[in-house]
Amino acid sequence: MSDIKVPLDVPKSMRDVYIANYDLITAGSGRLMLFAGDQKIEHLNDDFYGAGIPIDDADPEHLFRIAAKANIGVLAAQLGLIVRYAMDYPEVPYLVKMNSKSHLVNVSQKDPVSPQLWTVEQVVEIAQEHGLKIAGIGYTIYLGSEKEAEMLAEAAQLINEAHFYGLVTVLWIYPRGKAVGDEKDPHLIAGAAGVAACLGSDFVKVNAPKKDGKTSPELLREAVLAAGRTKLVCAGGSATTEEKFIRELYEQINTGGASGNATGRNIHQKSLDDAVKFCNAIYAVTVEGKSAEEALKLLE
Amino acid sequence: MSDIKVPLDVPKSMRDVYIANYDLITAGSGRLMLFAGDQKIEHLNDDFYGAGIPIDDADPEHLFRIAAKANIGVLAAQLGLIVRYAMDYPEVPYLVKMNSKSHLVNVSQKDPVSPQLWTVEQVVEIAQEHGLKIAGIGYTIYLGSEKEAEMLAEAAQLINEAHFYGLVTVLWIYPRGKAVGDEKDPHLIAGAAGVAACLGSDFVKVNAPKKDGKTSPELLREAVLAAGRTKLVCAGGSATTEEKFIRELYEQINTGGASGNATGRNIHQKSLDDAVKFCNAIYAVTVEGKSAEEALKLLE
Amino acid sequence: MSDIKVPLDVPKSMRDVYIANYDLITAGSGRLMLFAGDQKIEHLNDDFYGAGIPIDDADPEHLFRIAAKANIGVLAAQLGLIVRYAMDYPEVPYLVKMNSKSHLVNVSQKDPVSPQLWTVEQVVEIAQEHGLKIAGIGYTIYLGSEKEAEMLAEAAQLINEAHFYGLVTVLWIYPRGKAVGDEKDPHLIAGAAGVAACLGSDFVKVNAPKKDGKTSPELLREAVLAAGRTKLVCAGGSATTEEKFIRELYEQINTGGASGNATGRNIHQKSLDDAVKFCNAIYAVTVEGKSAEEALKLLE
Amino acid sequence: MSDIKVPLDVPKSMRDVYIANYDLITAGSGRLMLFAGDQKIEHLNDDFYGAGIPIDDADPEHLFRIAAKANIGVLAAQLGLIVRYAMDYPEVPYLVKMNSKSHLVNVSQKDPVSPQLWTVEQVVEIAQEHGLKIAGIGYTIYLGSEKEAEMLAEAAQLINEAHFYGLVTVLWIYPRGKAVGDEKDPHLIAGAAGVAACLGSDFVKVNAPKKDGKTSPELLREAVLAAGRTKLVCAGGSATTEEKFIRELYEQINTGGASGNATGRNIHQKSLDDAVKFCNAIYAVTVEGKSAEEALKLLE
Amino acid sequence: MSDIKVPLDVPKSMRDVYIANYDLITAGSGRLMLFAGDQKIEHLNDDFYGAGIPIDDADPEHLFRIAAKANIGVLAAQLGLIVRYAMDYPEVPYLVKMNSKSHLVNVSQKDPVSPQLWTVEQVVEIAQEHGLKIAGIGYTIYLGSEKEAEMLAEAAQLINEAHFYGLVTVLWIYPRGKAVGDEKDPHLIAGAAGVAACLGSDFVKVNAPKKDGKTSPELLREAVLAAGRTKLVCAGGSATTEEKFIRELYEQINTGGASGNATGRNIHQKSLDDAVKFCNAIYAVTVEGKSAEEALKLLE
Repeated sequence: MSDIKVPLDVPKSMRDVYIANYDLITAGSGRLMLFAGDQKIEHLNDDFYGAGIPIDDADPEHLFRIAAKANIGVLAAQLGLIVRYAMDYPEVPYLVKMNSKSHLVNVSQKDPVSPQLWTVEQVVEIAQEHGLKIAGIGYTIYLGSEKEAEMLAEAAQLINEAHFYGLVTVLWIYPRGKAVGDEKDPHLIAGAAGVAACLGSDFVKVNAPKKDGKTSPELLREAVLAAGRTKLVCAGGSATTEEKFIRELYEQINTGGASGNATGRNIHQKSLDDAVKFCNAIYAVTVEGKSAEEALKLLE
Repeated sequence: MSDIKVPLDVPKSMRDVYIANYDLITAGSGRLMLFAGDQKIEHLNDDFYGAGIPIDDADPEHLFRIAAKANIGVLAAQLGLIVRYAMDYPEVPYLVKMNSKSHLVNVSQKDPVSPQLWTVEQVVEIAQEHGLKIAGIGYTIYLGSEKEAEMLAEAAQLINEAHFYGLVTVLWIYPRGKAVGDEKDPHLIAGAAGVAACLGSDFVKVNAPKKDGKTSPELLREAVLAAGRTKLVCAGGSATTEEKFIRELYEQINTGGASGNATGRNIHQKSLDDAVKFCNAIYAVTVEGKSAEEALKLLE
Repeated sequence: MSDIKVPLDVPKSMRDVYIANYDLITAGSGRLMLFAGDQKIEHLNDDFYGAGIPIDDADPEHLFRIAAKANIGVLAAQLGLIVRYAMDYPEVPYLVKMNSKSHLVNVSQKDPVSPQLWTVEQVVEIAQEHGLKIAGIGYTIYLGSEKEAEMLAEAAQLINEAHFYGLVTVLWIYPRGKAVGDEKDPHLIAGAAGVAACLGSDFVKVNAPKKDGKTSPELLREAVLAAGRTKLVCAGGSATTEEKFIRELYEQINTGGASGNATGRNIHQKSLDDAVKFCNAIYAVTVEGKSAEEALKLLE
Repeated sequence: MSDIKVPLDVPKSMRDVYIANYDLITAGSGRLMLFAGDQKIEHLNDDFYGAGIPIDDADPEHLFRIAAKANIGVLAAQLGLIVRYAMDYPEVPYLVKMNSKSHLVNVSQKDPVSPQLWTVEQVVEIAQEHGLKIAGIGYTIYLGSEKEAEMLAEAAQLINEAHFYGLVTVLWIYPRGKAVGDEKDPHLIAGAAGVAACLGSDFVKVNAPKKDGKTSPELLREAVLAAGRTKLVCAGGSATTEEKFIRELYEQINTGGASGNATGRNIHQKSLDDAVKFCNAIYAVTVEGKSAEEALKLLE
Repeated sequence: MSDIKVPLDVPKSMRDVYIANYDLITAGSGRLMLFAGDQKIEHLNDDFYGAGIPIDDADPEHLFRIAAKANIGVLAAQLGLIVRYAMDYPEVPYLVKMNSKSHLVNVSQKDPVSPQLWTVEQVVEIAQEHGLKIAGIGYTIYLGSEKEAEMLAEAAQLINEAHFYGLVTVLWIYPRGKAVGDEKDPHLIAGAAGVAACLGSDFVKVNAPKKDGKTSPELLREAVLAAGRTKLVCAGGSATTEEKFIRELYEQINTGGASGNATGRNIHQKSLDDAVKFCNAIYAVTVEGKSAEEALKLLE
């Protein structure tokens, strides 16, 4: 059991539920391996079909098949998708992504906003009715958007409500909008991490910071500090080689101080078998405290 | 009885109602023939009166007369229209179109938004009070509109509420807005289908995709895959010859993998007798698994 | 008693109330003579004071004095006005105009929107508390306005709620906004009538259509057909001679198929005695089925 | 006791409360002397501090000191101010100004809107809990603003709710916005008065109309007629000499037909003693039916 | 116990709670020393990490460590932060900052608005469940912003609700927006103070006014007068030397009439020991009535 300090917006009667959910998705390690299966709205079909993507990935069930076979912390997806597949994948721990938008309107046309699609009550009712392992909820904030206010307010409420029911929360925070110059600036990303802390989220997912066009695990440290007791996980980002990914991940955690990762494309844009192996390698580094070398052996 | 996997936002106590509604409009085939009678707001009177349109079509009752006499899956119309005619056509299965807008303001002036007009509760109360066969609800999303967020949120809520009462859902999803280049692009339409899956709809209605200005049933396959367990139906589109329509429909289903069709103008812009025959032909291909030739014989 | 088909959003327990209200304002004829007393917001004081308008019309009580003495179907006015005069005019049948805006901001500055001012519940409570003969409600939609969505949604809800309480509904639908070219185009007005049908209103008030700058009763037929079981009434429009008005009205009903009229300025911009006579003439043609000649005799 | 016709949105059970409130602030005369103490938001500190304004006026308690010592009808102020001083001035009759905005953003930048700050329920609960003499509520509408719709809707609801609890209502209606040419035009102000009548307010406060740059009591008559049973009071306007003020006021009432006045700066921009005397003079003309000469003697 | 006049929107049953909260944060002095720990959203990480800022400040727990060791009136922070640390710092008196926005979008792009993040009910429930010393709430208004109306309305409601539960309120009011010329103008700041009075806040935090680019305690007097029974506290502003800060603070209180101060950066941008000493010095001047010299000795 992890030694998480239960936040005080969790009622006393829900402390055990919260701790159980937290342990379920971190295996008591306090570190999160989040499998991001929520991008069929955000990226439409771009990540799931096309040159270099195996046809397995064209079917949304691919996400569930991977999650059921591999070691993962939690599968993040929209509620609508979960309710259509979870009867066949009841053992998978789920995190409901509560908002989403398409990428069709870009920032030069209009600053981004992503609407809340369901209420926490609806999520909880469905989970209880069918005994689903829904352990948490997620929400994206585009910090610096002209619509930032709407998303900050929805996020604050969602976190409060999720904790009320003992659910764990993950904020995706991306600085984006006409006012934002360098979305990957380490100081700005640290600011985003601090916002997550002020909103009371358990985890915050940020993009890996870059300085002078280069990323390095040391650049994460300011953000990890700013996040305080909110734990920081890094987005997996665009596709890369498996070895590079695993080594970077190891450094993000062990040098940068990240508490995990959130990975989508790098997992699901593989055949089922390869995806399962890659999940297991990510999980080994993130949750099981293995070295990069040990993890890479799992890929052979 | 169809072997539909009941989504988990349908409460256990409403599973039988949901299955009955699903079977009512698909005749247990899992395929949907939707008669679209909802365009008196969207297209105003353009589809119902003018050169080449029989005068029968000028009267909204024409829609109900056809639906009562022909083989159809379900008649989609606004609630206001249903409550004025259903006392005389109680055997027709209905699907309430929950939002609508006129076509007067076009995209170059303002990106489209279509407001929710009624609540699911209102629909259910009326159906129960009068024993109407209201089996589902429909809603249109203009994906890529600057107002996309409002429609995604309303759609997610409507689907959740409809399933709560055991109703079947159909999303109309059309990419439209200043940000949208080619509304018929197969990859974009597959994206729309994936959005429907993430929102948890039972069916999604999309326009038939085109590549280099030409449509072909193969172009549907990416979208059918992306939709996953959400079933895809094709819009009938603008008027065409009966034979061409039936042959294309056959291929959409048997080559493209579509689970049905949603047809308006091609049905109601005919005299009552011709409309009934044409419905029956569509129904034969869609629901009864007949060949195009068998269906075309019904038109003689 | 009229043979109205009671729409199914009227609960069974309210059918008799609905029929009674319908008969009250149509005298069982199914045709409506609506005295429009709602323009003190829409036109401010322009219709009530100035050259050629008798001073009687400057006082809002003029509307009530006419309604109490003349044959009318129903007096339409805002709730605020009704609650200040109805204690002295308890026998007048009232229709509460639920939205209004001033004409100060014109279309070139901003597309029109007219806000709902009261709820149906408030109207019903006041009517019941004091035994007022409030038989229905009215609402204006500016079709083609950029704000069309707000008004369609409010109208749909108001009609549903009004029918729930057994009240009759009248929609004023005027195409208006930057997107609208010819507000009087017969085909566009037929589209407006079809929108009223889809929203489920009992009556729809439209402007008399014009073609090539000229109006004629035949131009109404498309709209009457499109309205289906929703009955169409024509707006009285700007002031004209009494004889011309009565003859046009006769043709609108007997040639065009209109089910009545909604008249404001042509009535209240007269002295009390003249206004009463003119109401009686309108009523004779509209409700009592008299000829234009018979009606004109009442003006002598 | 005044012979006011109680509007029918006052429930029967609240008629006596309404009449008591009406009589409290009009002393049974049916005419209202409103001391406007609500401009610390609208004009910020401009009216309360600066050259020519006695230092007494810099402290908000000045308003309460005057109200407690002088003859007034009612003191209008925001609820926040009333709840901080009323424990020391429990005998003052209060009217809660329900909306306010600062004057920082001017019309050339953005059309005005003034938000509702409290609910009638909150006002009533506080009044009952502490036995405060809160007799009514007030609300400002900027007629012709692009945001007019929001204010018309809030005003209609506030009047309905206020009457439900037996409170008297005053609307401040000022034509203002890019669409408004001459805010003081007598015909436009009569339009504003008619709007108040349609919304059902007990009183409407308008600016004194001007023609060709000059004001005269005769110019009020059109507005007084248009207001019908809603009573019209004139805003005091910018500072002027006491004698001119009293003589104009007398004519507004006795020639123009106004039912009172709403005066702020001309009262509170004086020392306590002078302010009290001036209130008494205004009250004498407004409520006690005295001549201008009799009133002016009170200033000596 | 302070001799505060309890405002009348505090119910009688909550008077003792209100007085206890008021005394808790003012130590019965009626003067407030507010430690501002709410700027991790407003300024992102700018105030917490960088050249000249000790690394202690990079961790949000720094704020709680200071608050627990030093003499302070109250620690202001977002609810999300409080619920993660308060279990370890249960003796600290807290004030929940109810709204926040980032500084990424600046005024030249869009006028500022800052959204309410939680409800008073949520704050009260959490405080009661865990026995937290949450004594009040805070809210920022950008006066003169085009979005001013939204913030005025939220502030009015929050104050009413906070008082209903016996909580003390602090408004941060900053004139800001395209319409605002000189944000530090003494007359404008006095206007802001008057707005707080009209909204009924217990305290108002304003920036120190400046004339001709210079600040002086005398410039506060107009604002202190305008605030009436609402007490005025000065923002600490940007970093400065300790001695200058303490001397200015002494004059703000003893010459300018301020009732305290709200200080963030000048406290937390120090090591823990230095921050504690500086808090104690501020507290000595503000709450304990010490001279600047006495306070400065505490820094040695």
